[in-house]
Amino acid sequence: MTPKEYQFLGKGHRLVEGLEKVTGRARYAGDMTLPGMLHARPILSPYAHAKIVSIDKSAAEQMPGVVAVLTAEDLLTKNRVIASRNSAVLAKERVLFRGQPVVVVVGDSPAAAQDGADAVLIEYEPLPVVADMLQAMTPAAPVIWPEGLPRDETDLTAAHAAVAKETEVMKRAPSNVHEENHYRRGDVEQGFKEADVIVEHTYTTSIVHQSYLEPHAAVAEPDPLRGSLTLYTGTQGQFMVRDEVARILALPKSKVRVVPLTMGGGFGAKYGIIEPLVGAIALALQRPVRLVLTRSEDFLTTTPAPASRIELKTGARKDGTLTAIQARIILDNGVFAFAIGGIAATLLGGYYRCPNVQLDCYEVITHKPQAGAYRAPGAPQATFALESNMDELARALKLDPLEFRLQNAAETGDPTGTGEIWPNMGLKLCLERMKKHPAWQNRTKGADEGIGLAIGGWPCFMTPSAAICRVDSDGTVRLQLGSVDISGVNSSLVLIAAEILGVSPEQVEIVQGDTHSGPFGAHSGGSQTTYSMSGAVANAAQEARRKLLEVASDHFEASADDLEMRDGQVQVRGVPDRMISLAELVEIAQTKAGGPGPIVGEGHAAVEENAPGFVVHLAKVMVDPETGQVTPTQYVAVQDVGFALNPMMVEGQIHGGAVQSLGWALQEAMRYDEEGQLLTGSFMDYAVPKFDSVPGIETVLVANPSPHGPFGARGVGEPPITAGPAVIANAIRDAVGVRITEAPMSSEAVWRAMQEKNER
Amino acid sequence: MTPKEYQFLGKGHRLVEGLEKVTGRARYAGDMTLPGMLHARPILSPYAHAKIVSIDKSAAEQMPGVVAVLTAEDLLTKNRVIASRNSAVLAKERVLFRGQPVVVVVGDSPAAAQDGADAVLIEYEPLPVVADMLQAMTPAAPVIWPEGLPRDETDLTAAHAAVAKETEVMKRAPSNVHEENHYRRGDVEQGFKEADVIVEHTYTTSIVHQSYLEPHAAVAEPDPLRGSLTLYTGTQGQFMVRDEVARILALPKSKVRVVPLTMGGGFGAKYGIIEPLVGAIALALQRPVRLVLTRSEDFLTTTPAPASRIELKTGARKDGTLTAIQARIILDNGVFAFAIGGIAATLLGGYYRCPNVQLDCYEVITHKPQAGAYRAPGAPQATFALESNMDELARALKLDPLEFRLQNAAETGDPTGTGEIWPNMGLKLCLERMKKHPAWQNRTKGADEGIGLAIGGWPCFMTPSAAICRVDSDGTVRLQLGSVDISGVNSSLVLIAAEILGVSPEQVEIVQGDTHSGPFGAHSGGSQTTYSMSGAVANAAQEARRKLLEVASDHFEASADDLEMRDGQVQVRGVPDRMISLAELVEIAQTKAGGPGPIVGEGHAAVEENAPGFVVHLAKVMVDPETGQVTPTQYVAVQDVGFALNPMMVEGQIHGGAVQSLGWALQEAMRYDEEGQLLTGSFMDYAVPKFDSVPGIETVLVANPSPHGPFGARGVGEPPITAGPAVIANAIRDAVGVRITEAPMSSEAVWRAMQEKNER
Repeated sequence: MTPKEYQFLGKGHRLVEGLEKVTGRARYAGDMTLPGMLHARPILSPYAHAKIVSIDKSAAEQMPGVVAVLTAEDLLTKNRVIASRNSAVLAKERVLFRGQPVVVVVGDSPAAAQDGADAVLIEYEPLPVVADMLQAMTPAAPVIWPEGLPRDETDLTAAHAAVAKETEVMKRAPSNVHEENHYRRGDVEQGFKEADVIVEHTYTTSIVHQSYLEPHAAVAEPDPLRGSLTLYTGTQGQFMVRDEVARILALPKSKVRVVPLTMGGGFGAKYGIIEPLVGAIALALQRPVRLVLTRSEDFLTTTPAPASRIELKTGARKDGTLTAIQARIILDNGVFAFAIGGIAATLLGGYYRCPNVQLDCYEVITHKPQAGAYRAPGAPQATFALESNMDELARALKLDPLEFRLQNAAETGDPTGTGEIWPNMGLKLCLERMKKHPAWQNRTKGADEGIGLAIGGWPCFMTPSAAICRVDSDGTVRLQLGSVDISGVNSSLVLIAAEILGVSPEQVEIVQGDTHSGPFGAHSGGSQTTYSMSGAVANAAQEARRKLLEVASDHFEASADDLEMRDGQVQVRGVPDRMISLAELVEIAQTKAGGPGPIVGEGHAAVEENAPGFVVHLAKVMVDPETGQVTPTQYVAVQDVGFALNPMMVEGQIHGGAVQSLGWALQEAMRYDEEGQLLTGSFMDYAVPKFDSVPGIETVLVANPSPHGPFGARGVGEPPITAGPAVIANAIRDAVGVRITEAPMSSEAVWRAMQEKNER
Repeated sequence: MTPKEYQFLGKGHRLVEGLEKVTGRARYAGDMTLPGMLHARPILSPYAHAKIVSIDKSAAEQMPGVVAVLTAEDLLTKNRVIASRNSAVLAKERVLFRGQPVVVVVGDSPAAAQDGADAVLIEYEPLPVVADMLQAMTPAAPVIWPEGLPRDETDLTAAHAAVAKETEVMKRAPSNVHEENHYRRGDVEQGFKEADVIVEHTYTTSIVHQSYLEPHAAVAEPDPLRGSLTLYTGTQGQFMVRDEVARILALPKSKVRVVPLTMGGGFGAKYGIIEPLVGAIALALQRPVRLVLTRSEDFLTTTPAPASRIELKTGARKDGTLTAIQARIILDNGVFAFAIGGIAATLLGGYYRCPNVQLDCYEVITHKPQAGAYRAPGAPQATFALESNMDELARALKLDPLEFRLQNAAETGDPTGTGEIWPNMGLKLCLERMKKHPAWQNRTKGADEGIGLAIGGWPCFMTPSAAICRVDSDGTVRLQLGSVDISGVNSSLVLIAAEILGVSPEQVEIVQGDTHSGPFGAHSGGSQTTYSMSGAVANAAQEARRKLLEVASDHFEASADDLEMRDGQVQVRGVPDRMISLAELVEIAQTKAGGPGPIVGEGHAAVEENAPGFVVHLAKVMVDPETGQVTPTQYVAVQDVGFALNPMMVEGQIHGGAVQSLGWALQEAMRYDEEGQLLTGSFMDYAVPKFDSVPGIETVLVANPSPHGPFGARGVGEPPITAGPAVIANAIRDAVGVRITEAPMSSEAVWRAMQEKNER
């Protein structure tokens, strides 16, 4: 089949679970109720760094409805080192960030647990706080982990056989810079010598929260007989959560079952944060327990995107040839390691073909919550810096900014910033496409208006995955999947099965696998799910098709080559009255001795190579000359999606990513004071884009098929968040002539820059 | 592999779910609690035949905690014809048997519902009752269905497209004999002419209840959004229950999901009796609802084995050659059709090679609950008659009863009583084996003691089945099955996977599929589950093994032929230090680009032919000359099991079947009076064998491998219940010289026969 012949693929189809979601029937972890279930409420540290002097549970334990008041000592993890936010089941002896859980109170009801929590008395002795990453890097700063970062696998009770090989080699002498990475290509000194123009700026981005609609929530149910644990949670990857919970609670993996529920948004943050704690509580009390974080708790205790500082120097010749890129990348990991400098470097030194590149990455520890993954982690930061500098280079060289990028854009086979080689990629195709777009062709602007443009992209990952396709005796096709759907993936996968089996997409159902009912599939991150799963689903459906045709071939005494499958039926080609429904074929298969057996197809895919996705975004903004307020008024997003299995879902991803990138660009920042206190712990203080602050977003899909996977699809989830901050910065520059290097680009910053410019 | 090389198969292994069961952790339908769940209590008809004059709900509806009082009119099935016990959601206009549900009261608690039920006033007008099957056959008897049997598929609201082809052709003019079947082979008149001895008796068996430990119970949960229904129930076949509920409630199959829970015994009766009613209530109220029958309700309203009357005439020559078998078989179907004469005839005319056979089967309607399947339906009845007559023939001919049977026993290729051809069978092997057994070789008996012997058997069925075998990243092997385990099947299937994958059986877990999560597998009836599933499981495990070896082959750079898989590892043959665990191989498979993908194997089997199972049982009894009480003191059960995958489970099946056959022989009878009132509606009145009334049972397994299936296993569940009544009758004959032809053989009947004999 070629795309033109597809009946369903590429045509668009509603979100398969949309009805549940809009009617409120979808069940989230917070909706789960089990018989005898208890409710947990955490007490979070009010200090960013303090010694826990004493914990007085007595008053709380007397409260009606309070079942237990638990500290680290009460959980089976009491002897474990706390080495990451995930493993921080409860703080021991000292607290290391504002929001670290110290005590958990369990009650018959959420209210009883909260009343109990209010009655626990904890005495702290505040200790010096290192809240700022630049301060943390100074020689004078107290070293937060003088003995080196704690290692996740250390369990003081016992040495496990499997532990040794996980041990991470310490990269440096004690310092708050827990990891450095240096990437070199060519000779940047020589490159800058060859440059006619050099642009040098320091860019910063803030800590940005993923701001999923559903705060973290989980239900744990112990099985005292088997010593096992079932966790119900909204997660991006049940197998990853299972493995992590098993590791932290020192249970065999087979004793932990993670059942993924409907997701209220993940964006990288839903791989298990409270799950080990909820599991530990359930095991301690041998009762089912539910914990749902409040929005403020979620802000305080989860893992937002790290703040960044990128000192960037770029040079180019008059003819537009890039000669050198040099960057110092500093990332605020919070109190535990979360190193993403490598991804930032991949893009910073990989978007463009440049002979001389030097990238130095520093991962810094501070007394703040551990940083975590947020949609394309590292990419908005790197892209903001590089694409701002590229804009300035083009201006300095008086080159068309799009032509300048096109001239230098990386192509298949070029190196990334970390020295890998780009597989098949479509960056130039996107630039060519934007070049022809009316918004670029006919760009005009009024007073205080500006148009900005930037590229972006993401390597997109992959994971070997399997799928099962079964056809039931009423013709219903069921896809059993171990992947979870956080972004509409299932609404594409049903189309694949429908296309191959010639049935309506409504006839295809998804059966969500948990860690016991599998099969193993890609987790939902790294823009990999559709790319990894679609081959598995296609192969499973093909196998089911093959078996159905075998039955039909026998039934009609005709060669399978002479049969066609469509509209839920198999018919002999050219003989319309010789037809049989899939339902009837399944009935035969389920009863016929010596036949092919029930119609069950296993399919798998282990794609050989990733399929990176690139974008070119354009925005028009209006800048209020009185206040500096920036209002985007137009947005065009060109993206190489390979092939849009379900264009409606792809466009939704692009809209969502672009809107989040406008949050990065203009609004979102988790601000901490010098004592490590979060100043923006609710949606009253932390501003996400709202419907009325976002312009219409036009999506333009470029189809540069991935050479792998059955239909040419690429990952689409992360690329659309990467370009926005640079696009807006470049548009502001175009509108009012100032270069803003700090994201979010607040009205105040823009106004100040305009003032300074006017003063010059 | 040959059986001698097996590491686990044939060695015996504990019941995989035994721990849950003995500790009370296993969850049955009656243990299910869902948020907002209601409780239903039925009101059963006190009459066997009556007009429903009026139903006054008003008082009940006012009771606290009563949510609804529902009659047939209140359910969406109101326009459906009641055509079977299964479809008898609630009686309409008239009741047709004592125990038919008329009203259901739904409350917040079981107690509230029961209080409500006690307050409903129903006025009946009694109608003439035809309770006895012989009376029902007389020309003078009122015809219960003068218009012919109602047809299941008739829905008065609409004509469904799928209905027409299900329509059953009426076999006869209106009569209480709703179906007759006549089977002929040779010429019985000629056969009797050739006979030197003719034995003629009339045998009767009673209505016998399956007496499972768990009464019928189900929970139904509606999904108002999708208009769908989930049923939780202990069942022998979730797909069959799903299809039946969908049909009766006029829902597409895809809108009904049946989740099979732990089973507290089925024996043929757990294919859905109350499920359509519970589903209809949940849909009517749009709330989850649970119904658990009391033991007495269960006796009154479910589907026990039919009573039978077999008029049997057999002839043989002096040399021991059987010349003719003639039988008139009458079965009491109750008020709806349940025809099993064909199975009785299959065995009656098929156990022995006999040239002249005439079998006439009559299926009779009475005002009693519909009969249903009970372990080897029809076989204990037929075997009781035939094997009693065979004993008398041997006596009359002064032949050794075992040699006489051996001389005439059917062999592979001989016809059954209905003209089918026996596939590979081992009846003679069983007789040969019993012949050598000390209990037969050295048989001695004291005063009032007797030894009896009889054969028995069952065709054993099969259903195409599929299975999924997944290996997890900790080496755990999971078998995903759509079959359910009512008899230890899973405890054999885990051994198959363990054997093939070289892991401990403890490392193999069963993942129970429901109708959504499948895959389709054989239902647990007809002694088919192990026979049908073991090939599917073996093929699935082989496929997983193949993939693991592919990964290992790549890892070791060695040919798969040079690798061996054992103790949870793959190693290079002869190089013990080159080994890798299955867990590590799975990790590689789940991460390696271009590899075989996650380790998921699909397997299926659609066995070409059934593999009948035969038995020879022997019992010694002591008959009390004063009271006629019969006490079995020894029991030997020889059975062709093909190959015992898990001998512990096979022996358990033989023990259980033999004990139940002793119930048939000596104790169990559901007695009705002439008004159709059940006189034995509790375990106070209905006596099942108890531990102290059962002798030790010695099992002797004959291994005559089935030519189909991967290991030679045959069905083992039903054969052991077939011989017992005849064995006991023959032992009584041997002990005290009387031939009892009515089962159960009560002390009174034995005593009366002894008196009559003494008077002669």
